[in-house]
Formats: sequence, structure tokens, C-alpha cells
Amino acid sequence: MKTWISRTAIPRGFRFAATACGLKRQGLDLALLTSEAPAAAAAVFTTNVVQAAPVRLSREHLRRSRGRMRAIVVNSGNANCSTGPAGMVAARRTAECVAAQLGCRPEEVLVCSTGVIGVPLRVERILQALPGLARKLSNRRRSFHQVTRAILTTDTQPKWASATFHLARSRVHILGCAKGAGMIHPQMATMLAFLVTNARIAPGLLARTLRAAVHGTFNAITVDGDTSTNDTVAVLATGASGARVIRAGSADFRRFGHALEAVCHKLALAIVADGEGAQRVVEVEVRGARSKRDADRVARAIANSPLVKTALAGADPNWGRILAAAGRAGVPFDPEQAKVWLARIPVYARGRALPFDERVAHREMRAGYVPIAVDLGVRRGKGGARNGKQEPGRARIWTCDFTSAYVNINADYRT
Amino acid sequence: MKTWISRTAIPRGFRFAATACGLKRQGLDLALLTSEAPAAAAAVFTTNVVQAAPVRLSREHLRRSRGRMRAIVVNSGNANCSTGPAGMVAARRTAECVAAQLGCRPEEVLVCSTGVIGVPLRVERILQALPGLARKLSNRRRSFHQVTRAILTTDTQPKWASATFHLARSRVHILGCAKGAGMIHPQMATMLAFLVTNARIAPGLLARTLRAAVHGTFNAITVDGDTSTNDTVAVLATGASGARVIRAGSADFRRFGHALEAVCHKLALAIVADGEGAQRVVEVEVRGARSKRDADRVARAIANSPLVKTALAGADPNWGRILAAAGRAGVPFDPEQAKVWLARIPVYARGRALPFDERVAHREMRAGYVPIAVDLGVRRGKGGARNGKQEPGRARIWTCDFTSAYVNINADYRT
Repeated sequence: MKTWISRTAIPRGFRFAATACGLKRQGLDLALLTSEAPAAAAAVFTTNVVQAAPVRLSREHLRRSRGRMRAIVVNSGNANCSTGPAGMVAARRTAECVAAQLGCRPEEVLVCSTGVIGVPLRVERILQALPGLARKLSNRRRSFHQVTRAILTTDTQPKWASATFHLARSRVHILGCAKGAGMIHPQMATMLAFLVTNARIAPGLLARTLRAAVHGTFNAITVDGDTSTNDTVAVLATGASGARVIRAGSADFRRFGHALEAVCHKLALAIVADGEGAQRVVEVEVRGARSKRDADRVARAIANSPLVKTALAGADPNWGRILAAAGRAGVPFDPEQAKVWLARIPVYARGRALPFDERVAHREMRAGYVPIAVDLGVRRGKGGARNGKQEPGRARIWTCDFTSAYVNINADYRT
Repeated sequence: MKTWISRTAIPRGFRFAATACGLKRQGLDLALLTSEAPAAAAAVFTTNVVQAAPVRLSREHLRRSRGRMRAIVVNSGNANCSTGPAGMVAARRTAECVAAQLGCRPEEVLVCSTGVIGVPLRVERILQALPGLARKLSNRRRSFHQVTRAILTTDTQPKWASATFHLARSRVHILGCAKGAGMIHPQMATMLAFLVTNARIAPGLLARTLRAAVHGTFNAITVDGDTSTNDTVAVLATGASGARVIRAGSADFRRFGHALEAVCHKLALAIVADGEGAQRVVEVEVRGARSKRDADRVARAIANSPLVKTALAGADPNWGRILAAAGRAGVPFDPEQAKVWLARIPVYARGRALPFDERVAHREMRAGYVPIAVDLGVRRGKGGARNGKQEPGRARIWTCDFTSAYVNINADYRT
């Protein structure tokens, strides 16, 4: 699978380190991202009812520090979820240990974990490793790249993306990394993403920008429909660019928002591309719906259908499964008015199959990126624009195909 | 996979025949079930927005004949769905041809199809085969068993079940057959089931009894979350038993309802057991929910989670995935109050893992039938009984595990 790799520019004021502390059988499993000065911070967390201890602690810290953070500490190999009161103690001790190393308050530290659920976290291994990790902190690319590897679980490769743009005469950088693999779904999943920027922006406005960026990116991808207990997207902004403060509604605000969304988009698609056993990224676009919400429901029903996803694994142009999945989404529409495109080939309209060359379709579907489009053909009241980006009843969701490798990876994750 | 095989007693007044008319590459693909006299008839159809031509026609026939039917004709190999006006013409001509053979009106014939979507139905093959098929009609077991085979698609074996009971001094039989495999889900799926009985009951009451029986059986199974365009459960009742007419609210009514539900239950579980690539049947029971509806949502979220289903394929006691799936169902509960059992072993309570022997759990999970139970621990207001069958916040759903064979079957269904 191809990953989206951008040239990495490390924004000033940030330092990174990663190490192998023994939570995974082998490889890097502990990462630290720090800001020299308190940075504006914002985060979006999982909506699962079951939330891991580090998620609950990080929420609390973000509130207590009023969105000013110094560090993010991340371990892979153990989700520290459903681990009872001991799990919360472990997360707190991790934050305290990082704070002691950096000379800051524990509530200035975000704690993230990913891995297996319900196994007690061997926090001593983290605590023992942290002093050495703090000494290794650096702002070199190599250190950042180690962080991108230390946060992985069943991912096959690290994922990062960056954007650079100007606000007046100052160069602003946004750099991000993410991990995904299984359990990727709307409203986030076993998915961690960390973004750092030297832009200057207040925590409240940063939170608003992050939520907007996450909506059409991390919240618009799905690998297997499961939403995890640990999902977190966090952003830190130092202001070290020297650029003027970003104000709501300004041109700077729009530019920053677009850049943040572009980085999130690249990371989200890299997560889908690296979905467990995935061979290809599938874009599901639904338009012509009564509302954005309806379009979203239909797109997710298609993107989460195992029958659609297995057909995609075999590059089988079985558009009947797409239509059947749309039909069971709970959104009323007239099949006679609906249209379906598969890899840009019109395959269904006016209630029946359109003639197309199956061999051509099969070949097109073997590409790394396969677009599926469905027009529900729902007429809106007069004045409802039906074309272009202004159309309200439209949604895009990204997913991957469903291969036997997915099953093999997940059938014995722990054994 | 073991199938539930009961001794087959053919209720009087019914005749069966099956043949290979060439819709499938090989094997039986056309079946006819007839009643000598007009039988009381009822049916439940798919809730998918996209409905195959035979489904629309059968709805119309049931209405026009006021629930009095003479025959059910079924083809496999082609779903006759998304086939435009020609599809409807094909379904009508099939009904007309059957009617001509039997000497009844076309609206006394139910038409069912299952197979691939969007490919024009070669109805001439059906029409050519029907006269010979009508001549072969018989009430021998062998003919019924051929019907059970002719309706299959990717099923690996035929499924039938029967019940016999007494109403006063008359023996009443219920006999049913079904096909399933992929696309099995709530509110039915690529699933056909046909039931015949010699009980004497009015069409309206028969419909009510059927809906009740389907609710906790065919509508409580899921293989891959997809609901098809062709699902139909139909029942014909001749009254040939000579038993008295079944009246609403009577003891006879309850006995008939229980027997009908028992037959549906066996067929539904046989469908799950024969889910594409399935190794085991999984029962997901959720209790301690605020309402039946909440319990049902959580049970379906667990039963449809690819991560849960792949863990089951590997007999991996990964209860964390069960809890995470419950947590994303959109139903609020306190994870500290919830409990999880896996193959009857308590694995989670009070917010953390319970100690259990993983090897024992692994062994228990390799059985053909694995129960999963989740108690959400939601307290209801005073007077809310928390135990026994009276408990309102309880639901049971049956599914199967998710193996790489499922993917292989579905990745090239048509090629």
C-alpha cells in the first residue's frame, strides 16, 4: 500500500523521542512529544461509552490546564482500558512522571494508549523508561519519525503529513502523525493522531478549528465499523512562528483551517489505506439526498457493508450489493430515480443495469483508489440547488476493502 | 456444520416439485410448492427500499387474493432485482404460467427469486420448465427435499424443520424449509423461508401469528449486517387436518403460535449455522438494559462487529472487543456496572477483567454454539423486575463467526 508521505518540516519549539520499554514483544512502544513552552492545546476524543483511563485523564487535564499543554505521552501495546482503578492510577503516574522530567504540572500532560483492552498496564516499564526518554528529546526529523513508529499497533507503516504556508511574512508549519489499522470508524476509533504547529492561536479557537477539520476527515473514514475506546486527535500550537495571532473569521483563520484539514485528510486516508489487510482505498460519495444527514447514513451503510467490501477485495463490479446496502440504510428513496457509478463507470440508472464492459470495470477496480458514487435522485423543494458543492444532501466517506488478510489478522490478535 | 434435521412429515394437501431449468450453472434451481385447494396465506417481506420484482408482485397478489393462495414458485440463481420493467413482466409471466398449469388465477401464486442482482432473468427457461415441473408435483418426502435444495444459492446444505402437535383430536403438522447464506440480517435478508401447515386458520390471524414468530427468529439473526432485496417468509395453511378453526386468544392459538415459532427458530439457526464460511453459531444476549429496544441495539452492535466476529473465528476470548462494540451502540450505560460472559465464563465486571483460564475459554469457544452475554447493569425505576423472562430490557440475537472463507466466497461471487 502506498502511503502519503510529505516532506517533514519540524515546527520550532517541539521535541520528540521514542523508545522500546517492553510493552510490545518487540519494537518502539513509548513516545513523547513536548513543547518547550506551554502550547495552546485542543483534542477530540472517542464517543464510545467505554472510555480508556488515559482518555478520561486527558479530558480532565485539558479542562484543568485550560487548554495549555506541554507534552503528549503515548504508549502502544496496551490500551489501558477496562483496567479498573489501577488503570487510572497508571495513567496519572505516567503524567506525573513526565511532568517531573519536564518541570511542568501533571495537568499539562496528555496521556494516550493504544493496544489490547482489559490487560493491566505494566506502568513500571513506562516509568522506568521515561527519564531516559526525556533525555533523548530532540527536534530532529529522525526523532519525529521514531515517534510515528512507536505509536503503531497492527499498522504496517508509519503515517505522517505536513503543510507549510505563510501568514503575512511568517512561515507556519503543521506536522502530524497518526496510527490506525483495525477498529477505524466514524466518531473515531483505535486511532491516534497528533498534530503540532508553530501557529499562534488561542485554545478555544484551536478547538473549534480542530473539530471542523476532524468532521470531514477522521470522522469520515471507516475500516470495520467499530469505534474504539481510546481514539484521540490532539493538536498543540506554540506560536513560535512569530506570526500574528489567528483571529476567528479572518483570512488567516481560513488559511490555517484549510491547512489543518489538509493534513488531517492525508492522515485519515493513510489510515484507511493501511486498514488491516486493505488492498485499496474506496471513496463512497452519496448525493441527491434530502439532507446531508441522509447522505451520510447511506454512505456509511455502503462503506460498512461486508458484502460491498468483499466484492471490492475481489475487484468484482457487483453494484447490486451497493444498491442493496443503500436500500437498507433507513433512508427512503425511489430506486427508479437512483444512479450508481463504480470506478466512475455508470452501472445503474432508471431501475436497471446499464451495459458496461465487466473486464474494464474489473481492471479499474484493481486500482489503489476506487470511487463509488450513488445519486439517490431525491427531489428537493423548489430552489434546492442540485449541483456543485452547494448541494446539501451530499456526503463522502472513505473506507478500504475487506480481505481474508483482515480476518487472519483479527482472528488471533492476542494469541 | 451441523444442521438441525427433524423427521419430515408432509402435511396433507401440499405437493412439491423441483427441477434444473438452467438459471444456475448446475443443479436444481426451480421449485414449486402447491396446495390442492386455496390455502390461507401470509407473508413477511424485506424492508429494504430496493425490492425485487417478485417481492412487489407477491405483495400485490397477496392483497388481491385476500390471503388465499394456491402456489409458491421459487427460482434460485437470479434475484430478478433491478431488472427494470422487464423484471416485473418476467415475474408476472411466471405467475401466469403456474396458474395455467394449476388451473387457478395468477394472483393465487406467490413468486420468489434469489441470486445475483441486476442481471436480466432468462424467464423463458422458467416458462419452458414449468409444465414438466407441474407434472412432477407430488407429496412425497423426496419431492419436498428436492425443493429444499432447489432454493439454495451459496448455502452448503438444505435446511428444513417440522413440528407436530394436537389440537383436540386432530394432528397438526407444520413443515418449513429455508435458504440463507450471506446477506442475512435483521428485518430479513437474502433469505427465503416457506412454511406449510394443515392447520385451519383465517389469513388475518395467520399473518399476525407469522409476524410474531418471525420477530424473535428470522428477524433476530444476522450474518453480515446486509438486508437483501428479496427476503420473504411465507406460510400456507390448508385446514386439511380437520382440526377446528384456530381463534385469536384461544389455547389452540397459543399452541399453534409456539409450534410455528419453534419451526422458525430451527430454520433461523440453521441459516446462521450455514452462514458463508461460518464455523460456529454465536448467541448474543443482552440484559439489564433500560428497554428491549436498547438491549436489541447493543446485541446487534456486538453481533455485527467484524472485530468480534473475527475473534470468534479464532476462538480468541477477546472480550474487550465485545465491550467496545457494546459501547458504540449509541445506548448509554455505565461500564463499571456492566458484566460480560463469554462461553458462560464471567470475564468482565466492576470495570475490569476477571481472572479466567484463557486455555479453557479458548477450548469452550471452539464449540459449535458459543453464547455471549452482556448485562448492562442499568437500574430501572422501582418495581422494575430484574430477573427472569419478564425482564423488559433483554434481547437475543444469533450470528456466526467471520472467517477468511467468508471473504473468499464473497470476493468473487460472480466471476
